[in-house]
Amino acid sequence: MARLIEEEQASGEVLAVYADIKVYRQTDWINNFWKALANHLPTLKRTWENVKEVMAPGALDPLAKELVYLAVSVTNNCNYCIASHTAAARAKGMTEEQLAELLAVIGLANANNRLANGYNVPVDERFVAPAEQD
Amino acid sequence: MARLIEEEQASGEVLAVYADIKVYRQTDWINNFWKALANHLPTLKRTWENVKEVMAPGALDPLAKELVYLAVSVTNNCNYCIASHTAAARAKGMTEEQLAELLAVIGLANANNRLANGYNVPVDERFVAPAEQD
Amino acid sequence: MARLIEEEQASGEVLAVYADIKVYRQTDWINNFWKALANHLPTLKRTWENVKEVMAPGALDPLAKELVYLAVSVTNNCNYCIASHTAAARAKGMTEEQLAELLAVIGLANANNRLANGYNVPVDERFVAPAEQD
Amino acid sequence: MARLIEEEQASGEVLAVYADIKVYRQTDWINNFWKALANHLPTLKRTWENVKEVMAPGALDPLAKELVYLAVSVTNNCNYCIASHTAAARAKGMTEEQLAELLAVIGLANANNRLANGYNVPVDERFVAPAEQD
Amino acid sequence: MARLIEEEQASGEVLAVYADIKVYRQTDWINNFWKALANHLPTLKRTWENVKEVMAPGALDPLAKELVYLAVSVTNNCNYCIASHTAAARAKGMTEEQLAELLAVIGLANANNRLANGYNVPVDERFVAPAEQD
Amino acid sequence: MARLIEEEQASGEVLAVYADIKVYRQTDWINNFWKALANHLPTLKRTWENVKEVMAPGALDPLAKELVYLAVSVTNNCNYCIASHTAAARAKGMTEEQLAELLAVIGLANANNRLANGYNVPVDERFVAPAEQD
Repeated sequence: MARLIEEEQASGEVLAVYADIKVYRQTDWINNFWKALANHLPTLKRTWENVKEVMAPGALDPLAKELVYLAVSVTNNCNYCIASHTAAARAKGMTEEQLAELLAVIGLANANNRLANGYNVPVDERFVAPAEQD
Repeated sequence: MARLIEEEQASGEVLAVYADIKVYRQTDWINNFWKALANHLPTLKRTWENVKEVMAPGALDPLAKELVYLAVSVTNNCNYCIASHTAAARAKGMTEEQLAELLAVIGLANANNRLANGYNVPVDERFVAPAEQD
Repeated sequence: MARLIEEEQASGEVLAVYADIKVYRQTDWINNFWKALANHLPTLKRTWENVKEVMAPGALDPLAKELVYLAVSVTNNCNYCIASHTAAARAKGMTEEQLAELLAVIGLANANNRLANGYNVPVDERFVAPAEQD
Repeated sequence: MARLIEEEQASGEVLAVYADIKVYRQTDWINNFWKALANHLPTLKRTWENVKEVMAPGALDPLAKELVYLAVSVTNNCNYCIASHTAAARAKGMTEEQLAELLAVIGLANANNRLANGYNVPVDERFVAPAEQD
Repeated sequence: MARLIEEEQASGEVLAVYADIKVYRQTDWINNFWKALANHLPTLKRTWENVKEVMAPGALDPLAKELVYLAVSVTNNCNYCIASHTAAARAKGMTEEQLAELLAVIGLANANNRLANGYNVPVDERFVAPAEQD
Repeated sequence: MARLIEEEQASGEVLAVYADIKVYRQTDWINNFWKALANHLPTLKRTWENVKEVMAPGALDPLAKELVYLAVSVTNNCNYCIASHTAAARAKGMTEEQLAELLAVIGLANANNRLANGYNVPVDERFVAPAEQD
């Protein structure tokens, strides 16, 4: 387990990232993921900048992005990420019914991915053609 | 590569599933995934029933479900599934900007899953508590 | 793509492994996996010794072992391994019905693994206890 | 962690599935997987129907199917599934020797999958041809 | 397949990234990965900045970083990444003997990961203690 | 959880492997991985022989091999393996800065693997050609 850098131990540069996280997320606490990344300032800064840029509202809304993030985390069985992003998705409005449907889709896709692998299904021309015509 | 069961070769029971796929999806063709599954009628029928039930509009809309399905397929590197569900998502209205943002979130989550693993980040109490209080 | 070491190019030590493969498997050809590993003699020898030891008849029969090997390969989406071990399983008697059931189980397990992850299901005491009592 | 729906809290429809599980498996208890799925009745019902259909005796016997299920779960590192399906396989007669051989095959296949990936081994014509001739 | 943005089609901002890649890598061509990312300028820019920062010489030298990158790509079976980073590692001095040893370690780790999963090996206190004392 | 075979319980053949581990690693204790494998003597012996051969100093030095092993374990989220091989890498001289850079590369590669998958980037001819010319 990595050492968690609490605020009282943090350098000025780490504190600056923590402060930005709090303002950006309108929250008063820092979760352990960031306290672990704070062991390496470049990783802390780069990861936070990436998260802000990628998870910002855009063509996909923030809840849709959280659902996708959670789908990846469940597929990879990242226990921490499942816990933190289930909480994050709920904070952005995910209902229990939506969570249940999300998990159902994740299960289905993981099953069907293997049926496609195992039967070694060739890609249909109609799926290839449009992309090549782009 | 599995044998693909074309309509002219298909049994009545397989044809019935193909017909249901065409009606349900309002399309005139069957993609190779189903033609491969048709080598085993119970798998064809069960998978199609699962897809209809899980991917139907519900608390999550069909496009949100396609994005989640695609996120799983990209994480697992299922080439067929990426091709077919990119096409399916586009058919349900996914724009190129949305696809790009989707892939960005998938990449980010895959990276951060490993940072959480590698630093062995302990789950914050705040993430655990609400679920246990349910 | 790795260079494939054909028999006419192979060193004496590589040829000795190829000869052992042919005798052990009662076959007259070497598939590409071994020709690629032959780029590194220690890997060729170690992998072949491991395969002979692990895949030999034991408490599990050779077909059961092939099915397990194939289940892993399909889950990991190793295209070469799926092709070669589908052939190997057929050579050991796997029927098309058995292959279809195998793929169905693989799909189901991949789905249910993610439902267990996503719901973060705690391990039942009854599952833990017996092992600890061992 | 998902809320676990105990029998005293369960709706009639959930109880009906629980009752079917008990009868089908000739057991007097419900393991946590089902109690978690019971948060979403359609997922509970669909998953149980899938399990009954796919894991039933067929061209592969129930123990062979459990071994395959366990191989997938170990490859994916699903802790809950490893615990529950190790127990299930033992209940169906798996010996400690069989478990050890199973894990050995799983390890070997996971290793060789990556050797095939890393050397980018091309699929042998002999492996492709029979399937295309089907 | 994504549209590849060739230099003649690229916007000024994409061309600026391409130019930076060429200068930084002292090369006269752009590989397809970047031409695909160029479909989404923010992803192109962010990914290139991340690569420059993370892959730069530091406490680990560039070749060690390439070997780690390749180990991840082989484990995930990313065909494009295996091809491009095998080439990149060779360009940074990787010998054929080093590649072979790398693949051997990757195979071994993938096997032993599953033995640890399957036997559900508890983490030794000695491995936990130092990190908690940090 | 597997039974751990402590030295007092171990057979002579298991003790011989334990003794070899202690001598080879110049240590006075056996970590739980080996105590779990000791449930199956052939797996214990084969795995230890494989580890000795593959992890020995060669064209890659022992620390480089540990970093690669750790990269695989983090990608696969093998909790035991992450703990044991982080300790092993530190014992071989890995600094905290090197660990942080290692995790950064692992994260980056896992992200970029999915961007390559999702955009279905075709392998550049320059990456294919040299290998085929070998």
